[in-house]
Amino acid sequence: MANVTRDEMAAFLAAEFPQTRVTVEAIADDGVVVAHEITEAELRPGGTVSGPVMMTLADVALYVAILAQIGLVPLAVTTSLSINFLRKPQADRRLLGRCKLMKLGKSLAVGEVWIHSEGMDEPVAHATGTYSIPRER
Amino acid sequence: MANVTRDEMAAFLAAEFPQTRVTVEAIADDGVVVAHEITEAELRPGGTVSGPVMMTLADVALYVAILAQIGLVPLAVTTSLSINFLRKPQADRRLLGRCKLMKLGKSLAVGEVWIHSEGMDEPVAHATGTYSIPRER
Amino acid sequence: MANVTRDEMAAFLAAEFPQTRVTVEAIADDGVVVAHEITEAELRPGGTVSGPVMMTLADVALYVAILAQIGLVPLAVTTSLSINFLRKPQADRRLLGRCKLMKLGKSLAVGEVWIHSEGMDEPVAHATGTYSIPRER
Amino acid sequence: MANVTRDEMAAFLAAEFPQTRVTVEAIADDGVVVAHEITEAELRPGGTVSGPVMMTLADVALYVAILAQIGLVPLAVTTSLSINFLRKPQADRRLLGRCKLMKLGKSLAVGEVWIHSEGMDEPVAHATGTYSIPRER
Repeated sequence: MANVTRDEMAAFLAAEFPQTRVTVEAIADDGVVVAHEITEAELRPGGTVSGPVMMTLADVALYVAILAQIGLVPLAVTTSLSINFLRKPQADRRLLGRCKLMKLGKSLAVGEVWIHSEGMDEPVAHATGTYSIPRER
Repeated sequence: MANVTRDEMAAFLAAEFPQTRVTVEAIADDGVVVAHEITEAELRPGGTVSGPVMMTLADVALYVAILAQIGLVPLAVTTSLSINFLRKPQADRRLLGRCKLMKLGKSLAVGEVWIHSEGMDEPVAHATGTYSIPRER
Repeated sequence: MANVTRDEMAAFLAAEFPQTRVTVEAIADDGVVVAHEITEAELRPGGTVSGPVMMTLADVALYVAILAQIGLVPLAVTTSLSINFLRKPQADRRLLGRCKLMKLGKSLAVGEVWIHSEGMDEPVAHATGTYSIPRER
Repeated sequence: MANVTRDEMAAFLAAEFPQTRVTVEAIADDGVVVAHEITEAELRPGGTVSGPVMMTLADVALYVAILAQIGLVPLAVTTSLSINFLRKPQADRRLLGRCKLMKLGKSLAVGEVWIHSEGMDEPVAHATGTYSIPRER
C-alpha cells in the first residue's frame, strides 16, 4: 500500500534533491512513475540520450518506489544498480521510469525499472537496483 | 597500447560532452584515470554523494578507456552498467575513477572501474560496464 | 512469434545439453517457461536451494527464449547474467523460470527471467541476461 | 586476516556441499583461490564451457572468501551475482576463480571474482557478488 501521496513525494524530493529534474508522475499501490524531460545538453552525438541520464532516472524511480512504501525517511541509500540499455530514446519525448518493488525486506529493498520514451511501446532501458533501508525507522 | 594523449582526450570530451564535469587525469597502456570534483548540489542528506554522480563517473571512465584504445570515434554506446556502492565518499575530496578494460573485442568492450575518494585507500564504489563498438570504424 | 515448438525445443536441449535437468514447460509468443525439480543434493543447510541452481535455470530460460525466436542454432552464448535472490524457495516445489525478451537485436539479445516456486505468488529470484547471437545464422 | 585454514575450509565445504566439485586451492589474507576441473558433460557445442559452471565457481569463490574472514558459519546466503563472460575457456585446463572482497560489512559482503583457465593470462570471466551475512554470528 502506498503511504505517501504524489504531492508529498514531490515536495520531499524538491527539498532533499533541489538539483533533481526528475518529476513524480504517479504513485500507486503496485508501483510508481517518474519522468524526465530531455534537454539539449543531455543529447549525445547522433541524438542519443547519455546513459547517466537514464541511470539517474532509474535511481530516482527506485528511491521514490521505496519511500512510497516505507515513508519519507531520507536515509535509504542505493547499494547496487544494474542497467541494460536497449534502444535509442526519442530526443523529443520525455523519459518515463516505471518502478515496481520485487522485495521490500527489513534491511534491503529490490526493485526493477522500465524506462520508455513517453508514448512508445518498446522500452529504451531496464534497470534493477537494491537499496539499503535504515533500521531505525 | 594507448593511442590517444590526455590532451586529445580532454579536447574530445569537451567537444562531445560540453556539459560533463568529469576530467581526464591520466591515460596509460593499462588503464585510465578520470576525476570529478564534488559540488554542494551533489551532496545528499548526511553528506553522502548521490549514486548517479558515481554512475556518471564510471560511465565516462569506461568511455575514455575504450576510446584511448580504439581512437576518438564518437559512436561507442553503453549497453550495460552495473555498480556496487561500497562506502560513503568523502564530501571534500575529488572522486577518482580508474578503469581497466577486461576485453576489447570487435563489437563489444568490457571494463571495470574502481572509484575512490582521492587519497583514500578503500574504494567507495566498483562498476563493470559494456560498450558496443561501431563496426565501421 | 515463436518459431519452435515445445517438443522440438525439448529434443534440442536433450541433444545439446544431455546433462541438463531443466525441462521446457511452455513456449509462447511472448515468452517461455522452464522448470527444474529440486533434488536433495541441491538443498543447502536450512532447506535453501543453492544459488547456482537458480542461475542455471535463468540461463537456460534465456537460451530457450532466444532460440524459440531465432531458431535452433546452437551457437548463441551468454555474455552476461545478473541475478537477485529475493526469497527462499520452497524445497518441495519445482522451480519455474519465466523468460521474456526485452530486445532481440542482430547481434545481441537481452531478456529477463522471473523465478518462482511452483504455485507461489512471490518470486524467489529475478535475473537479466545478455546473449551474443551468431551473425551467420 | 584469514581465520580459517585451507584444510578446514575444504572439510567444511565437503560437509555443507557434498555435491560440489569445486576445490579450495589457497586461502590468503588478501583473497582466496578455488578450482574446478572441467568434465566432458560440462562442455557445450564448440568446446565451450557452459555459463552455469563458471557462475557456480564464482559463487563458491565468494562464499569461501567470506567464510575465510568471518569463520565457518553456514548461513551466509548470496543476495546477488553479476557475471561477464569474456573469452572461451580452455576445455582441457582447470578453471581457477580468484576472489577478493571489496567490502565486508556487518550485514553485507561484496567481492569480485576473476576466472581464468589455469596457466592462461587472459581472464575468461569476471563476477561481482553480494552475500548477506547473518547478524547472530
